Amino acid sequence: MKYIIGIDIGGTIIKGALFTAEGNLVQAASIETQAYQGTEKALKNLLSLVNSLKEKERGCSAIGIGVAGVLDAKKERLLQSPNLKNLENINLKRFLVESVKLPAYLENDANAAALGEKWAGAGRNIENFLLITLGTGIGGGLVLHGDLWSGEHGKAGEFGHMIVEQGGAACACGKKGCLEAYSSGEAISRMAREALQSGACSSLKNLSSGNYDIIDAEMVYHAAQNGDAVAVEVYKRAAQYLAIGIANVNNLLDIHHIIIGGGVSKAFNLFAAVLIEEVKKQVFRISQDRIMIVPSQLGSEAGIYGAAYLALKNAIAAGAGN
Amino acid sequence: MKYIIGIDIGGTIIKGALFTAEGNLVQAASIETQAYQGTEKALKNLLSLVNSLKEKERGCSAIGIGVAGVLDAKKERLLQSPNLKNLENINLKRFLVESVKLPAYLENDANAAALGEKWAGAGRNIENFLLITLGTGIGGGLVLHGDLWSGEHGKAGEFGHMIVEQGGAACACGKKGCLEAYSSGEAISRMAREALQSGACSSLKNLSSGNYDIIDAEMVYHAAQNGDAVAVEVYKRAAQYLAIGIANVNNLLDIHHIIIGGGVSKAFNLFAAVLIEEVKKQVFRISQDRIMIVPSQLGSEAGIYGAAYLALKNAIAAGAGN
Repeated sequence: MKYIIGIDIGGTIIKGALFTAEGNLVQAASIETQAYQGTEKALKNLLSLVNSLKEKERGCSAIGIGVAGVLDAKKERLLQSPNLKNLENINLKRFLVESVKLPAYLENDANAAALGEKWAGAGRNIENFLLITLGTGIGGGLVLHGDLWSGEHGKAGEFGHMIVEQGGAACACGKKGCLEAYSSGEAISRMAREALQSGACSSLKNLSSGNYDIIDAEMVYHAAQNGDAVAVEVYKRAAQYLAIGIANVNNLLDIHHIIIGGGVSKAFNLFAAVLIEEVKKQVFRISQDRIMIVPSQLGSEAGIYGAAYLALKNAIAAGAGN
Repeated sequence: MKYIIGIDIGGTIIKGALFTAEGNLVQAASIETQAYQGTEKALKNLLSLVNSLKEKERGCSAIGIGVAGVLDAKKERLLQSPNLKNLENINLKRFLVESVKLPAYLENDANAAALGEKWAGAGRNIENFLLITLGTGIGGGLVLHGDLWSGEHGKAGEFGHMIVEQGGAACACGKKGCLEAYSSGEAISRMAREALQSGACSSLKNLSSGNYDIIDAEMVYHAAQNGDAVAVEVYKRAAQYLAIGIANVNNLLDIHHIIIGGGVSKAFNLFAAVLIEEVKKQVFRISQDRIMIVPSQLGSEAGIYGAAYLALKNAIAAGAGN
């Protein structure tokens, strides 16, 4: 097997790349998803991207796809995807197999990102780890015994919706007290706004020109880097809750490696010290010195790497040969 | 392989039994642990029990042992065990292999109980489940892909020490807000005492003759069965927190089967309806109808069954033949 294609279908953009079986990226490309223009348009864009990559090399043998949303148990279609509604219930696997004449494999995007880090990123040579994607929301992907643990119906890794405070802050999912309501990008901006609204003195007032709606995690990050006490405190609080989530996973699974990806991970250096200190407080003594928390190496490319690795593994298992 | 021995070393009693390879209990026995009398005494008692079982049948081929505490990574000795301090750092595996001349395998007791339910109890034919032991404290054992997931250092399944309320009630482990501080037998009696101390009117006043120190989970259970509103509320609260813990595991791992064992599980019928209702509120829609929560089938015998199964599996893997 010489080349494989990895695709990451997001709400806005479809990214893809051609990889060697050794995990080297040969060529990358992207296209707008345009799923809001209808199912056909999105499928046409997907196909166009796949074909452009496939034509680069004749030895291409399989396609892997990471996609944002909940998949069916057979991993053929999206059951639920807020940002790709027009792709729900479409058999994406069959569509690709029939249009491109190559084996195709689907996975949830956070799971794909975990596989990507395992193949070519911060998870290389690590048997067990949790990849946490800290973005607007919080996702996760779990690698156990060197392989993806995607659960009974492919929806494992919903780390952001583990409850860390009974009856706590409202989460976008409708529940209360989810980790996502404290440690996501959205939570960071909300906590900063709340502090300002309750009269705290902060440079965020000027940075936002008094329009608190435009405060996002990145703005809070820059304020914190410049020593703004409110912003520092917000990141600290986010890290404290994140620490509880990580400690909970350690207590349940006895795994010690955590990789942090997603947009908010750009602030890793800002919160890493507090995070590690808090995790150590919340785990058993025997785990304290074993906990390793590192930033993602592949960043937003983790998904395409993982999708390609998924295809590679499945194609090998299916006996596609070399 | 005809017979195997399963042993469960507890703080007070060592239980053991001889099993067929098909999971039938042939003969059971027990002896006091007496670890407080010193290491030698406890080892002598263990050996005496093992020998009494071994002598029953000539075809005995391996010994499995479940033991309360944290094991070393090689599964040979206890690193930490509050109730078996005199057995800490003793190479129990080597002791048995040398004294009994049979292969011996060690596992944590809650993990062994999960294996027991998998072999011959409520976990038969279930690929993935969490066994929760609700006793004075809360333990757990996780079966994934049909096999025990004991983690990187054999301490997985510390379900009771997952935090469900940041900064919440004090736990015996020293942390705050652990599930154990809300849903264990100890927490149930504490919550009942707190209600009485704050002036609630309850039959528990008479049942305890005003000596609140003697209130335990069983007394609260009997009061609840007789319709005592305070006792009913305490069990409801315990079930609500337990539901958060179960939902968290579902969100992280996408597994749907939960087996509840331990002394408090005798009250299963009292809290099961609330528990299931609350779990459904806390998981994603797609999981709501899949969640299955059932009581343990083997009860306090799960540990010896699981220890025997551990020995059976390991002996087969080691090529002990038939």
